[in-house]
Amino acid sequence: MNFVDIIAKKRDGGANTEDELRTIARGAADGTIPDYQLSAWLMAAYLNPLGPQETAALTKAMAESGERIDLRGLPKPWIDKHSTGGVGDKTTLVLLPMLAACGLTVVKMSGRGLGITGGTVDKLASIPGFRLDLTPNEMKKQAARIGLALTGQSPNLAPADKALYALRDVTATIGSIPLIVSSILSKKIAGGADTIVLDVKCGSGAFMGTLVDALKLSNQLVETGRLLGLSVTASISDMAQPLGAMVGNALEVREALAVLSDDGLSRPSLRFKELCIHYCAEALEACGQSPSMEAGRREATRVLTSRAALSKFKEWVSAQGGASFWETDSLPAAPVRKDFIYEGTQAHVAAIPAVAVGTAVIELGGGRKRKDDVVDASVGIELHRSVGDAVNAGDSIFTVHARNEDEGSIAMKAIARSLEYSGDAVPTPPLILR
Amino acid sequence: MNFVDIIAKKRDGGANTEDELRTIARGAADGTIPDYQLSAWLMAAYLNPLGPQETAALTKAMAESGERIDLRGLPKPWIDKHSTGGVGDKTTLVLLPMLAACGLTVVKMSGRGLGITGGTVDKLASIPGFRLDLTPNEMKKQAARIGLALTGQSPNLAPADKALYALRDVTATIGSIPLIVSSILSKKIAGGADTIVLDVKCGSGAFMGTLVDALKLSNQLVETGRLLGLSVTASISDMAQPLGAMVGNALEVREALAVLSDDGLSRPSLRFKELCIHYCAEALEACGQSPSMEAGRREATRVLTSRAALSKFKEWVSAQGGASFWETDSLPAAPVRKDFIYEGTQAHVAAIPAVAVGTAVIELGGGRKRKDDVVDASVGIELHRSVGDAVNAGDSIFTVHARNEDEGSIAMKAIARSLEYSGDAVPTPPLILR
Repeated sequence: MNFVDIIAKKRDGGANTEDELRTIARGAADGTIPDYQLSAWLMAAYLNPLGPQETAALTKAMAESGERIDLRGLPKPWIDKHSTGGVGDKTTLVLLPMLAACGLTVVKMSGRGLGITGGTVDKLASIPGFRLDLTPNEMKKQAARIGLALTGQSPNLAPADKALYALRDVTATIGSIPLIVSSILSKKIAGGADTIVLDVKCGSGAFMGTLVDALKLSNQLVETGRLLGLSVTASISDMAQPLGAMVGNALEVREALAVLSDDGLSRPSLRFKELCIHYCAEALEACGQSPSMEAGRREATRVLTSRAALSKFKEWVSAQGGASFWETDSLPAAPVRKDFIYEGTQAHVAAIPAVAVGTAVIELGGGRKRKDDVVDASVGIELHRSVGDAVNAGDSIFTVHARNEDEGSIAMKAIARSLEYSGDAVPTPPLILR
Repeated sequence: MNFVDIIAKKRDGGANTEDELRTIARGAADGTIPDYQLSAWLMAAYLNPLGPQETAALTKAMAESGERIDLRGLPKPWIDKHSTGGVGDKTTLVLLPMLAACGLTVVKMSGRGLGITGGTVDKLASIPGFRLDLTPNEMKKQAARIGLALTGQSPNLAPADKALYALRDVTATIGSIPLIVSSILSKKIAGGADTIVLDVKCGSGAFMGTLVDALKLSNQLVETGRLLGLSVTASISDMAQPLGAMVGNALEVREALAVLSDDGLSRPSLRFKELCIHYCAEALEACGQSPSMEAGRREATRVLTSRAALSKFKEWVSAQGGASFWETDSLPAAPVRKDFIYEGTQAHVAAIPAVAVGTAVIELGGGRKRKDDVVDASVGIELHRSVGDAVNAGDSIFTVHARNEDEGSIAMKAIARSLEYSGDAVPTPPLILR
């Protein structure tokens, strides 16, 4: 079939066949279908969304468009987690060692950050020496040895996704849920997982702004996974305010270490820890390791309290060549720190918009506006309060970590302007929305 | 505005502004907007069609995307004609000298044929020496001298259309009526015309298969022209059977000369002559030269009968360097001629499918399957009957002009198979449908 006919079919609302979707994935991966034809198809697929069978077939075809990590021989389940991304989302850094400490095999590919959504690769790259270019073979070997391996996105795994994602980014076709689903799951399948825990972020700081959209995405992820014979579980978590205390690459690594050390955590960090326990429990239940969420929660709490997860984290960092920064304090640190001091009457924090904090971190140099921007790992924001917390005159609400006074002042003002307070008590917003 | 936002607006059914459409036309013309973004916009515009104001603005922007022929100083009206294309459509060859003989200034760019739709450029190229690469300046000079000039499509006139058309062809976005309208009219405006006569072909051999589609296109052409301050007139004419007797490049030039000579015409040629008179009258009425269609028809008939149009045709061919083929018989002629002889009982011709004849001419080598195919000007089909005509055993229905016996037989069989006859009288189908 001529590719123009494949486009025309989707344009007219028809369903593309498995063969046609394989043609698309292969053509995107090997460059034999020109970009302008792929993007016409993408727009047609945006406006006439793929159905469940098409989404599953495209996902499979994309997963098969390149190399795959073959985990045969490693203890099952082979678990992966994915977050749709948010501000301060360093969950992977804590959850992966927790899962490995629970005895699961965890193999994950992570991406770089773009826009206000941080990337796990950027966070781990702030650890001197940490390797993010493991080959499939190295991944497998390391996972066999310590139960855990993570690498940056390889151009060889699901190359069709890489090509289509790059096009979607510049053709206003990012927001199609079936295309998002196939992008997420194809990489997970190519990465070898059979059980996938998904954290769908919802709120102003997330890709899915509304619960309706987040639900749609999470349902389609689970449904597509089911059609492909995977165990996929998804929860929707709050991304109206940043996740945890720290936003910024090295700062988030510090917070991850603090949560794994389970020691003297601030209220925002406690909220983040709660999220890690939730997803760990969900994974344990999904793969049958725990009989219930409650049992999973107990197990998750145990690997934190016992510091088994902390040991696994250190083992992991060392295995991938990273410095023992917990001993040498070798993480980059910003030269300027500025506290924002609350000067009003006693009140409660009513809003800490994730967008404002995420944007400020980009302006500080800690994120990317363009794909080739260099990220400064040292800068960021440290929040001392979460929404619902009481504040009194003289309290520090947040600390800016900046390269210089000027940038620090600009970030401080921008975030301070975005904060909202209330004289009345403000209920703590739920962390897990569904 | 970021181009992704321009795409997103159209994707969401919004109206692109004049500025945004100018961005698209300029970006397409100078290559600063990549093809993959243009094609995403084209698909969005296909599925969320441009409104009248957008169509007019895009047309204007495309017309202004390159050079323009400036006819100031030449007697008004400046007239152009356009046909949406069909099988055997050599109207331009006859109509242009008729209009010039009526005293109008006629300046036209024509295209090459692709698929079953022939191209005026290919037909004129069968005249030895005929130049189809006149510059804007040469066009103007010649029009000043003899009232008439025609050139092939220049990459410098409406380059945005050239770029967008090439993309539409390979992205299943050809069929959008507002995009067709802007493509047609932008070239006419860049060509300098202020009065445009449009022949919208309708039927199985035309791009618009149904009267509903043809009406939609013709209404949008007229409406867009009106919004741009042009005088645009459109009729819909039959393209279920081929137009006239001849299909094939040199054969059609011969038929044009025969009609202009107004001498011993076959029934199919008479039908073609009727079409030329109709459009000539429409042009004369549109520009106010004739007070009514009836008066226009009389004037059109006069320039044929008086051979004023024939003289103008010869003047035109000579002006553009073409051989005086009417004296020297220097048009290419095919070596093999094969008549198809009707052997049934007395009947009437019920159908001569234009598609079958057009396809047979391509197979004979007279048309293009791919853009870079070389056309054999000598081959083609000569029809001796039109739909509705009576046939008796022993009549020749059509003659194949072929390069060799084999190709001639194949074409003859293919066309013969497609013909339909009826024992009952068959009414002559109307030539002008609206």
